[in-house]
Amino acid sequence: MLPDAPTTAATIALDARPARRARKGRAQSTRSAEPGQNLHLRTPYITRRIPTYDLLQEEALARIEATAERILAEIGIELRDDPEAMALYRRAGAKVTHLTGATWRIRFEPGMLREILKSAPACFTQHARNPANSVQIGGDAMVFAPAYGSPFVMDLDQGRRYGTISDFENLIKLAQSSPWLHHSGGTICEPTDVPVNKRHLDMVHAHMRYSDRAFLGSVTAPERAADSIEMCRILFGAEFVDRNCVIMGNFNTTSPLVLDGVTTAGIRTYAAAGQGSIHLPFLLGGAVSPLTMAGAVAQCLAESMASCALAQLVRPGAPVVLGAFLSSMSLRSGSPTFGTPEPALGSLVMGQLARRLDLPLRCAGNFSTSKAPDGQAMQQAMMSMMSAVQGGANYILHAAGFVDGLLSMSYEKMIMDMDMCGALHAYLAGIEVSEDTLAFDALAQFGPGEHLFGTDHTLRHYETAYWDSGFNDDRTYETWEESGSVDAARRANQRWKDVLARYQPPPMDPGVDAALKDYVARKKAAAPDAWY
Amino acid sequence: MLPDAPTTAATIALDARPARRARKGRAQSTRSAEPGQNLHLRTPYITRRIPTYDLLQEEALARIEATAERILAEIGIELRDDPEAMALYRRAGAKVTHLTGATWRIRFEPGMLREILKSAPACFTQHARNPANSVQIGGDAMVFAPAYGSPFVMDLDQGRRYGTISDFENLIKLAQSSPWLHHSGGTICEPTDVPVNKRHLDMVHAHMRYSDRAFLGSVTAPERAADSIEMCRILFGAEFVDRNCVIMGNFNTTSPLVLDGVTTAGIRTYAAAGQGSIHLPFLLGGAVSPLTMAGAVAQCLAESMASCALAQLVRPGAPVVLGAFLSSMSLRSGSPTFGTPEPALGSLVMGQLARRLDLPLRCAGNFSTSKAPDGQAMQQAMMSMMSAVQGGANYILHAAGFVDGLLSMSYEKMIMDMDMCGALHAYLAGIEVSEDTLAFDALAQFGPGEHLFGTDHTLRHYETAYWDSGFNDDRTYETWEESGSVDAARRANQRWKDVLARYQPPPMDPGVDAALKDYVARKKAAAPDAWY
Repeated sequence: MLPDAPTTAATIALDARPARRARKGRAQSTRSAEPGQNLHLRTPYITRRIPTYDLLQEEALARIEATAERILAEIGIELRDDPEAMALYRRAGAKVTHLTGATWRIRFEPGMLREILKSAPACFTQHARNPANSVQIGGDAMVFAPAYGSPFVMDLDQGRRYGTISDFENLIKLAQSSPWLHHSGGTICEPTDVPVNKRHLDMVHAHMRYSDRAFLGSVTAPERAADSIEMCRILFGAEFVDRNCVIMGNFNTTSPLVLDGVTTAGIRTYAAAGQGSIHLPFLLGGAVSPLTMAGAVAQCLAESMASCALAQLVRPGAPVVLGAFLSSMSLRSGSPTFGTPEPALGSLVMGQLARRLDLPLRCAGNFSTSKAPDGQAMQQAMMSMMSAVQGGANYILHAAGFVDGLLSMSYEKMIMDMDMCGALHAYLAGIEVSEDTLAFDALAQFGPGEHLFGTDHTLRHYETAYWDSGFNDDRTYETWEESGSVDAARRANQRWKDVLARYQPPPMDPGVDAALKDYVARKKAAAPDAWY
Repeated sequence: MLPDAPTTAATIALDARPARRARKGRAQSTRSAEPGQNLHLRTPYITRRIPTYDLLQEEALARIEATAERILAEIGIELRDDPEAMALYRRAGAKVTHLTGATWRIRFEPGMLREILKSAPACFTQHARNPANSVQIGGDAMVFAPAYGSPFVMDLDQGRRYGTISDFENLIKLAQSSPWLHHSGGTICEPTDVPVNKRHLDMVHAHMRYSDRAFLGSVTAPERAADSIEMCRILFGAEFVDRNCVIMGNFNTTSPLVLDGVTTAGIRTYAAAGQGSIHLPFLLGGAVSPLTMAGAVAQCLAESMASCALAQLVRPGAPVVLGAFLSSMSLRSGSPTFGTPEPALGSLVMGQLARRLDLPLRCAGNFSTSKAPDGQAMQQAMMSMMSAVQGGANYILHAAGFVDGLLSMSYEKMIMDMDMCGALHAYLAGIEVSEDTLAFDALAQFGPGEHLFGTDHTLRHYETAYWDSGFNDDRTYETWEESGSVDAARRANQRWKDVLARYQPPPMDPGVDAALKDYVARKKAAAPDAWY
């Protein structure tokens, strides 16, 4: 008798197959291997049914908040190159000190930003062109979107290379094909073969054309932000856009403690149009933030609050999302590291702080520094991603594809991450405790020593009880070996090709598409190409 | 300006290297790449400094407990082939019904087992032959041990094959070499080249000889349990063994709701000697337990309580560990699945239930069904392992090497898992919130826009702030590519060979070792080989 021996139990389990197969009959053969048999878990966005993992107690949280207020009051934020933003902050009561040229130090009395942020919604809807895919951002809602911003892409066939518009479209299509993402994201990779000043037009059009989910617009220049919103007016109608959030921009602070004018002008553009904005300190610990997590989190809160407040000053009630991107560094190489334990803990705390501020939170994702879709990639990803979902983050960018410290988007890891996002749907559904799920009758039916395959309880629940991965290989070693001993990376490599081969774009009104194409063509023709 | 762009920050980080290198001077060159620079995290066992992740509220927990009591009172446990155990339960007040032959149904009035279990320690010490490696089991202590019980081993060179005593020794040596495990485990793989009735002698001797940590003894027959304890008397001295816990046995219930006589006789053997016992329902959901997690957890509690109680009836105060091994199954193949979300949630609940019972808990581990040390393996492992550490499990068997649904021990995954266990040391240390870690001064020192490398705060903390993996590759893509584009699996393959090549056995008194060898030789000579 081997303790912890799975052999016997596995044999028992296998014994049950003929009966169950026979019962399922023809339905079995028509089921695909992807995305598993989890149709009951599909949803436009997740509603979290597990409690948040609250790492710190009241006193510690209050000290972090007090430190954030002290940073804002005593050190302040440096604002560069945006006199309009400066005027908005000053009018609201901030203490503005002119430094040199178009540079100001903005200091906020303790409590001032919290007061301003009261006009921001705790939860809002970002509409998708397919209304069934509109998402809630905030509260118990959770939205997964692919990774964002890498200049490179990689796959097992070609290795790493600069991203192109063709990669961009491929990755949008892969994301759209997964039931486990809810949002199309934004700069899923940099399409480096398109001029810098025209890239945003192709990117926004690709999101609109190849996905019918919500997405992020351009933030790299105010006029590109304006183009993104204008294209939404074509897609959704101008009146709808004026009354609803249909696009968001993801704005990074320039840490530590700087807001640059391109960012603030972009924030003002989105907010003025009533559109959403995410306010993200990108904190590489030790480089642009303290390397103790308490301090990093305090700084993150301070920067994001100051940035969010600008949107409220432009248009009170404009949807804003508090942001946190915490990382660490290798003390041996000085390189940033991702998917490490300390930022995972910090992300849990950011969840607590966002709830106390009553604002939606963007946080963490499937981070990794691995250069391959391997064990390291998924170990780091999982450690980071668990913190996002357990911390109650509402918008989780970087939920799929992130490798190479965000420098690359991996086709294979995207497949793996999307399946993991599916598993997290089951995780976030929690445990139901009821007379039925407590299942006394299941044990009583045949009694001690008898397996439970045939119990009424099992027959009632077996189709939905467990997450059924459409990607992981749970078969026996023998079966796996007979079918070629294909590991996860190579399986993912085949999978993304299959998905792209099967991809069908969601339907779109040809007139709308023509108008979008016309807008893109006119804007492209109106300016010479720029590559910087 | 690329949002979420790590390029600039990475460059900033790299800029700082020359200065930091120069400062560290010669020390740099003597540092090895393994186990990273985390010496401050090394500890004989972890003391958890983060709160547990409490999934369910009082009412739900009380319903689960009431269901467990109802199972015990109304269905009861079937006991097979151990009249002594039957007499112990009857004498304690259980309602015993004779079924057929040496088989009894034992029913327990609600509350009876909780009353019996009050004599069990909430926390105890398992002594190691190196006193510095003795571990606490219970309370906020957490102990990681390698996987247990697989008949096969695998590595990238030879694929899967039956385990041998040579593999057994190799795996003990790998575990012993990692600072991130705390316990040598038990049947790290089955040494199938040694006769079944003599295996335990070689296994116990290998743990004693190649590790100086605590370990598990044999449970496959009462006389093998007795041998294991007798060998401890040689190693520790009979008097010490009588007064202290120096060995534990891991006993599986025969789910659903059966205790077989080999198991109960083994439990009685360990308990009579004052040694520890782990009481583990191995619940393959849908096969031997309800496939709704609330019911599985109720059954797990019922079975483990009944089994733990036997040890208390033999010797009140004998150390016992509540056990939980929750799994799921694939509804498509009927195969057991591991590292899935529902058992992860169940493990969190088992943590809550164990604390309410005030008993130490063994739970979860680095589970996976993958047949390779790949992305699937680490994604599943991490999902499972996070539940163990967040749920506050005290003894985590299967913390390293587990693949193939526990049928195989992977040399490569063992390396990966051990590094992950290291990361969990940093995770479990939590976030300190103090004037120093809040780091206001770090931001104030140079102010907005200036990186923090040179701040006093950074210089004070950079050596210990972050987990520094000794295995993951956090270098740039270019560096990684120049050094051969080695993925995690192949890196682990090289690593275990390097570790074995460098391995030095911990010192042992030659007289003691000779006495152990003599004991093994005498016992082997006293009986013919048996292969079943």
